[in-house]
Amino acid sequence: MIIMKTDATTEEVAEVVKEIKKYGLRADVSKGSYRTVIGLVGDESKVSFEHFATLPGVKEARMVEVPYKLISREYSKQFESEEIERAVVRVGDIEIGGERPVFIAGPCAVEGHEQLLRIAEEAKEAGAHILRGGIFKPRSSVHSFQGLGSIGWEEAREALSWMREAGERFNLATVTEIRGEEQVDLAAEYVDMLQIGTRNMYNQDLLTKVARTGKPILFKRHFGAGIEEFLSFAEYIAAEGNKNIVLCERGILPVGKGKNYTRYTLDLGAVPTIQKETYLPVIVDPSHATGRRDLIFSMSCAAVAAGASGLMIEVHYNPAEALVDAQQAIMPDELREIVDVCREIHRLTRAHGNEKNQGKAGG
Amino acid sequence: MIIMKTDATTEEVAEVVKEIKKYGLRADVSKGSYRTVIGLVGDESKVSFEHFATLPGVKEARMVEVPYKLISREYSKQFESEEIERAVVRVGDIEIGGERPVFIAGPCAVEGHEQLLRIAEEAKEAGAHILRGGIFKPRSSVHSFQGLGSIGWEEAREALSWMREAGERFNLATVTEIRGEEQVDLAAEYVDMLQIGTRNMYNQDLLTKVARTGKPILFKRHFGAGIEEFLSFAEYIAAEGNKNIVLCERGILPVGKGKNYTRYTLDLGAVPTIQKETYLPVIVDPSHATGRRDLIFSMSCAAVAAGASGLMIEVHYNPAEALVDAQQAIMPDELREIVDVCREIHRLTRAHGNEKNQGKAGG
Amino acid sequence: MIIMKTDATTEEVAEVVKEIKKYGLRADVSKGSYRTVIGLVGDESKVSFEHFATLPGVKEARMVEVPYKLISREYSKQFESEEIERAVVRVGDIEIGGERPVFIAGPCAVEGHEQLLRIAEEAKEAGAHILRGGIFKPRSSVHSFQGLGSIGWEEAREALSWMREAGERFNLATVTEIRGEEQVDLAAEYVDMLQIGTRNMYNQDLLTKVARTGKPILFKRHFGAGIEEFLSFAEYIAAEGNKNIVLCERGILPVGKGKNYTRYTLDLGAVPTIQKETYLPVIVDPSHATGRRDLIFSMSCAAVAAGASGLMIEVHYNPAEALVDAQQAIMPDELREIVDVCREIHRLTRAHGNEKNQGKAGG
Amino acid sequence: MIIMKTDATTEEVAEVVKEIKKYGLRADVSKGSYRTVIGLVGDESKVSFEHFATLPGVKEARMVEVPYKLISREYSKQFESEEIERAVVRVGDIEIGGERPVFIAGPCAVEGHEQLLRIAEEAKEAGAHILRGGIFKPRSSVHSFQGLGSIGWEEAREALSWMREAGERFNLATVTEIRGEEQVDLAAEYVDMLQIGTRNMYNQDLLTKVARTGKPILFKRHFGAGIEEFLSFAEYIAAEGNKNIVLCERGILPVGKGKNYTRYTLDLGAVPTIQKETYLPVIVDPSHATGRRDLIFSMSCAAVAAGASGLMIEVHYNPAEALVDAQQAIMPDELREIVDVCREIHRLTRAHGNEKNQGKAGG
Repeated sequence: MIIMKTDATTEEVAEVVKEIKKYGLRADVSKGSYRTVIGLVGDESKVSFEHFATLPGVKEARMVEVPYKLISREYSKQFESEEIERAVVRVGDIEIGGERPVFIAGPCAVEGHEQLLRIAEEAKEAGAHILRGGIFKPRSSVHSFQGLGSIGWEEAREALSWMREAGERFNLATVTEIRGEEQVDLAAEYVDMLQIGTRNMYNQDLLTKVARTGKPILFKRHFGAGIEEFLSFAEYIAAEGNKNIVLCERGILPVGKGKNYTRYTLDLGAVPTIQKETYLPVIVDPSHATGRRDLIFSMSCAAVAAGASGLMIEVHYNPAEALVDAQQAIMPDELREIVDVCREIHRLTRAHGNEKNQGKAGG
Repeated sequence: MIIMKTDATTEEVAEVVKEIKKYGLRADVSKGSYRTVIGLVGDESKVSFEHFATLPGVKEARMVEVPYKLISREYSKQFESEEIERAVVRVGDIEIGGERPVFIAGPCAVEGHEQLLRIAEEAKEAGAHILRGGIFKPRSSVHSFQGLGSIGWEEAREALSWMREAGERFNLATVTEIRGEEQVDLAAEYVDMLQIGTRNMYNQDLLTKVARTGKPILFKRHFGAGIEEFLSFAEYIAAEGNKNIVLCERGILPVGKGKNYTRYTLDLGAVPTIQKETYLPVIVDPSHATGRRDLIFSMSCAAVAAGASGLMIEVHYNPAEALVDAQQAIMPDELREIVDVCREIHRLTRAHGNEKNQGKAGG
Repeated sequence: MIIMKTDATTEEVAEVVKEIKKYGLRADVSKGSYRTVIGLVGDESKVSFEHFATLPGVKEARMVEVPYKLISREYSKQFESEEIERAVVRVGDIEIGGERPVFIAGPCAVEGHEQLLRIAEEAKEAGAHILRGGIFKPRSSVHSFQGLGSIGWEEAREALSWMREAGERFNLATVTEIRGEEQVDLAAEYVDMLQIGTRNMYNQDLLTKVARTGKPILFKRHFGAGIEEFLSFAEYIAAEGNKNIVLCERGILPVGKGKNYTRYTLDLGAVPTIQKETYLPVIVDPSHATGRRDLIFSMSCAAVAAGASGLMIEVHYNPAEALVDAQQAIMPDELREIVDVCREIHRLTRAHGNEKNQGKAGG
Repeated sequence: MIIMKTDATTEEVAEVVKEIKKYGLRADVSKGSYRTVIGLVGDESKVSFEHFATLPGVKEARMVEVPYKLISREYSKQFESEEIERAVVRVGDIEIGGERPVFIAGPCAVEGHEQLLRIAEEAKEAGAHILRGGIFKPRSSVHSFQGLGSIGWEEAREALSWMREAGERFNLATVTEIRGEEQVDLAAEYVDMLQIGTRNMYNQDLLTKVARTGKPILFKRHFGAGIEEFLSFAEYIAAEGNKNIVLCERGILPVGKGKNYTRYTLDLGAVPTIQKETYLPVIVDPSHATGRRDLIFSMSCAAVAAGASGLMIEVHYNPAEALVDAQQAIMPDELREIVDVCREIHRLTRAHGNEKNQGKAGG
């Protein structure tokens, strides 16, 4: 990390970038209103930071120890007092990581025009800000329904156009999951935010490709990944210059023998832990974590109480007939109750301790 | 499970118990105000429930499939509408599982008379109801401090008497952990509640022995145990006729590679999940789960939002000088803030969805 | 699964395939020397197997319960006594799953022409059959060396040509890992076998793409995946009509607290377990599993004793200077000792019990 | 650890021990034929090793960093070249950790006199050295059969006497599991070796109590324990001056989602890993690890190939009628095949690489 002086010139910055390239590395240039910070992308082990420190315009040059340098609190802290240390990611008109919790809702899978439009309308009325809808569904079995987008490109385009239509009609931003590299450009035409699902967290070629669209990325933790790994793979997105990243905890592998009462184990401790390591906003998906409609209320409240900046919840007007994950979707009026109570909890916990994790004051 | 008719006589109940003993099993007789339910303790596989159904006074006889029969919701549901389906466990004057969240606080280890009394006083002022203090400390290394009680029986008795003194002076109920069978009777003389720690969850001989004291038991989940196992071992306590059991989630093994930012992973989904399986109250210990003072506020709020009936938190007036787990204890004024905010969250979430998990209405 | 009569005609088979397509499913037609078996690819839940059973030429039609139908033992068993029930996968001249254990060896990463050629020569002399060499390296950190192939397409092509050259010169088959979809066609031009690494096990779009090359696939288990999931994702390859699949156990996430002495935990029970579920050959990678040179001998012997059909081992003439995973590569003469002892163990265990898992006799 | 000079006097040793006690610690005095080494038991953090180094007769004094000091390789290495660095634990006439692999076999649970005697005879004929038989059975459910010893003390004594009788009649050493503190003294009267099962690995009060009998201890790893924890709890036994400890790997918690094909996951990498950390012998229990009769042969071979000094296998002349774990016991003639093949593998692997882990040469 190379921290420039507040009065460093454009030429001085360019000179530093040139030097970085000599090492075969790339430079990540972040301009704050006070100063510019330059991150190094690649293997820093042979870099002479002493040399960089002597270049004109450089205030300080040193190695960041964590593998998630560009998204670390240590990095954001350089933008001193006038800057916001915690990033707000904008998706359409919506701010994730801002003053209010954000609700992402919609069906697990887009199944048809009418289904999507109706759910979008009801979700909006219940308080949702962003519409989710799966078109390219990752599934554990090749013998299961893989989403309309897996039938063919035409079906994919049509389903994506419904997402855009629903978003425009009900004033909702939109997000859909990308499962393979060939889907990136097409989906980026139609939706406001691209999601990387749990099974693709380690798929670095896909991460690079979605990052390059410049769109905000909803990045889900793999169910077998530790927090350090999760952030290290988020760094693949940031390394392409795209820091519009929203991190999402969605449940990890269960522990122990015997019956599993939930699909995964929601790791809510990850929320404040990640907030202390990075400036990126963190949201929670209680639907996939629990797989049980009757636990969504409790775990939504708990997630917001833990400090989450938002929730991603599967909603359906008739959960029983959903083609995928029918047992975990809730009804729109259940969503409304969650929105109401979670806003209260968010207000209450931020007024006390949680602002230490989330606000300007840093951690 | 044998459900007696509401007008079954004492003789009819006795007859059923006699029949059960013929199978080499024990009978667990629970009298509600409306009816009596008799649980079978032991291997039911050869029991003829058809035969029992024909005995005088028997309304219904059938096998309960789960291994935690005596503590199951199915069992408590038999006590029909006038009965409270969810147990309240009394510890001294305190009710766990009742209208208000309960706060158990105190030092990880009792280190001296003055230390304990001062913490007790400050914890009480901050809103605590029950004083915790470790005298027999389970430790991962034989080379670490094992608690005053491990030095000798005299030291154990003295430390226990301080617990009693602190409880009486500041009107706090008291709880301490039992680590081995020889400690049970001594500790039961001095404290109101006996704790089985995470490392002893599978120790069935110890469970049987603490259960027989009749004292309320604080039973912690092993960090590698699934929920079914946890409840199956709680059943060892219930099988001795002691159903004054408070279940405690305290963190499970972390998943994934790389640095661990917390000691364990708090499994808050366990709270509502367990509440749907059993009528026993569930509390949460964020101190051992996280091992980090700066996460206690967030995880306490999240635990109560998830539906927990109480919290167990390590408190010290000077955490840095604690002999054990110094990095996880909070100051009394931090406890006060947690008590205040958690009461609000408890009120808020119960007024909405969480009463479905906790109240009379059943799940 | 639809099992045709031994005298079913080509027209009858075509008719069945046509019927399958009516359900929106694909047909996987496997011709044995005695009979043809047709697997259904897609959601079978609405298929009427009773209807299929009545079609001309059909002997039997029924659902296979496991999600890995096309690679299951149940499927291969249909090819009755004259057929080999256990598949042998051919890579160049080499047979994996045949009479002798196969040794895949080479550097973690291809670093240069001379490095690769020298290792290839020494590995061949030590008894290796297939040369491995990483060109597109998946790494946990974007700041680590990602392999020559990640620098640019020209560098990728050059490194791949060295693999081909080394294979031809020393009569070794070759395998390299594919990390992203764009690398598939290029790599398929140069090497005999394509590897899907642990981090891409869940990457179904990539699996589909590599499968379509028709090349044999070395498919590694994800470190957080259960065996059912592992086989279910191998099914994505088989569903494209490519059953030249070699499964590879390479270590799973460790359990418990405290220091990790090895990188992962080698799950050798997976070897015979998988062999009882599927007809595909299973090999083991002790290098990535342990990450420790001093454990490779023991774990190689154990893997073959457990019934593995081969081993994949990192070899370097000077492990200390390897750019990636320097601490786990062994020297060529260590490989020779492993080859010698493992051949003995393979002979010994197959002569006794392991043939039950591996031979024609089925399980 | 305090290493005395080879010519240190008894008085000088006594003086060091006296100094150690001043710190409130205990001293573990190990006399080799060349020199004496003194381990400190307790919290060393305040010990001045500089001071000890100046005492008469002391060659060297320093802290051992690992929590398993007394059983560490670093400790045993002090007994220089003439000493055997790897301990052999004697159970009756049998040597565990010596030149030949040791086979412990018998029923899961002792069910009757005839059953036990018949199995003992057949196991002996098949090549077993030590008879196992469970009398106090730890069970996940209070409603399952807990072993004859759980019925009453008289039944316990009778079953134990059968073990002694079977051992004497067929010249087998004997081992049984201790589940609770009250069983220790009784069992120690009748059997040659006491077993601590997986569920009691963390039960430090029980460990201390069995250690004090002076009997050899078969110490099983908890299924959720890392290796460091496992060794740290073995240290509780060593800290009582009892180093006749045999460590046993018996399977850890499985990873991933979906069906479990085996009860636990056998961690064979633990065998050589532990052998590099400690001088104690390591054996493997494939019966509890897999829970499947058809995997015992493969996993037994693999365990010995990995370097195990012995195996513990459940054997029954009629597995189907066993009261506990019926699906995992093998027949005596299957045991004979395992004994034969494993002896060959043991000879083969020790002649090559595994002696590096096991022999005098150290690691």
